Amino acid sequence: MDNLKCKVRNVPDWPKKGINFKDITTLIQDGGCFKEVVDLLSDPLKGRRVDKIVGIDARGFLVAAPVAYKLGTGLAIVRKPGKLPYQKISKEYILEYGSDTLEMHIDSIEAGEKVVLIDDLIATGGSAGAACDLIEKQGGEILEVLFVVDLPYLGGSKKLKDRGYVVKSLVVYDDE
Amino acid sequence: MDNLKCKVRNVPDWPKKGINFKDITTLIQDGGCFKEVVDLLSDPLKGRRVDKIVGIDARGFLVAAPVAYKLGTGLAIVRKPGKLPYQKISKEYILEYGSDTLEMHIDSIEAGEKVVLIDDLIATGGSAGAACDLIEKQGGEILEVLFVVDLPYLGGSKKLKDRGYVVKSLVVYDDE
Repeated sequence: MDNLKCKVRNVPDWPKKGINFKDITTLIQDGGCFKEVVDLLSDPLKGRRVDKIVGIDARGFLVAAPVAYKLGTGLAIVRKPGKLPYQKISKEYILEYGSDTLEMHIDSIEAGEKVVLIDDLIATGGSAGAACDLIEKQGGEILEVLFVVDLPYLGGSKKLKDRGYVVKSLVVYDDE
Repeated sequence: MDNLKCKVRNVPDWPKKGINFKDITTLIQDGGCFKEVVDLLSDPLKGRRVDKIVGIDARGFLVAAPVAYKLGTGLAIVRKPGKLPYQKISKEYILEYGSDTLEMHIDSIEAGEKVVLIDDLIATGGSAGAACDLIEKQGGEILEVLFVVDLPYLGGSKKLKDRGYVVKSLVVYDDE
């Protein structure tokens, strides 16, 4: 996946000093790389029963939506507060300083559905963990949790694996 | 497109009293309808030179991303302020009360690229108009502007057509 890794842009000191932000916009702007990302995430799911792909607001939508299209499944979304118009459930999660919340419409997953959760990047895993809680609260069964980029030194992917989830990523950074 | 229209959820009084919000989450949750939306938007572009699909933050990503995947083109994004990590250009646009701003990375479009802009819905057309400006500022040529839902009584699609753009939508509401 080195061809994909070299397309991810490193933006130093964003969103704050000391953080090296991994920017996937340079990756998805390349049609060939974007196609490869979607194919690598979706091909292993072919032939399995997948009822719904769930994407996390907002960069996760960029990858989750074409995977859902390719597999022919429905697409459900997890959003930040105040963005969903209908009745919803919400889950608060802890950040380094303070907390944040994610929401899903109450009818976005049907009980018993086989679900694959997708986001662009996993860091500390707070938002992905909250999204898993929201899916399971509706009775969804999480088959896999997929990311384009994993920053394992921040512990998020290990946290999800420790909860029993199958976690996969395409591009892994061993240090900052 | 009546099968698509009946999948769009009407949410009264959201985000404020008197507005009937058209919610596409119920449409994209249906795998067959989601596939139909993407195919109807992308099939007429097959065989034409399209260099980049541009999606507007954030619901526009849900449709723009699979269209880009299907056509094998790169995907560029227009975002709300503070969301893009790298150097960017921005465009302010007028709302009913006040104004808002959209941004693009300075390297998201190359001069001379043929571009299709996609969003989920067009109402008054402020954000789509600003996105067109940002694309053209980078030297992109706008082939078409595509929406899932058009609310023509709010005047946005006419405004874009008056600027000379080819504007298409799948689901049109004749009144509120």
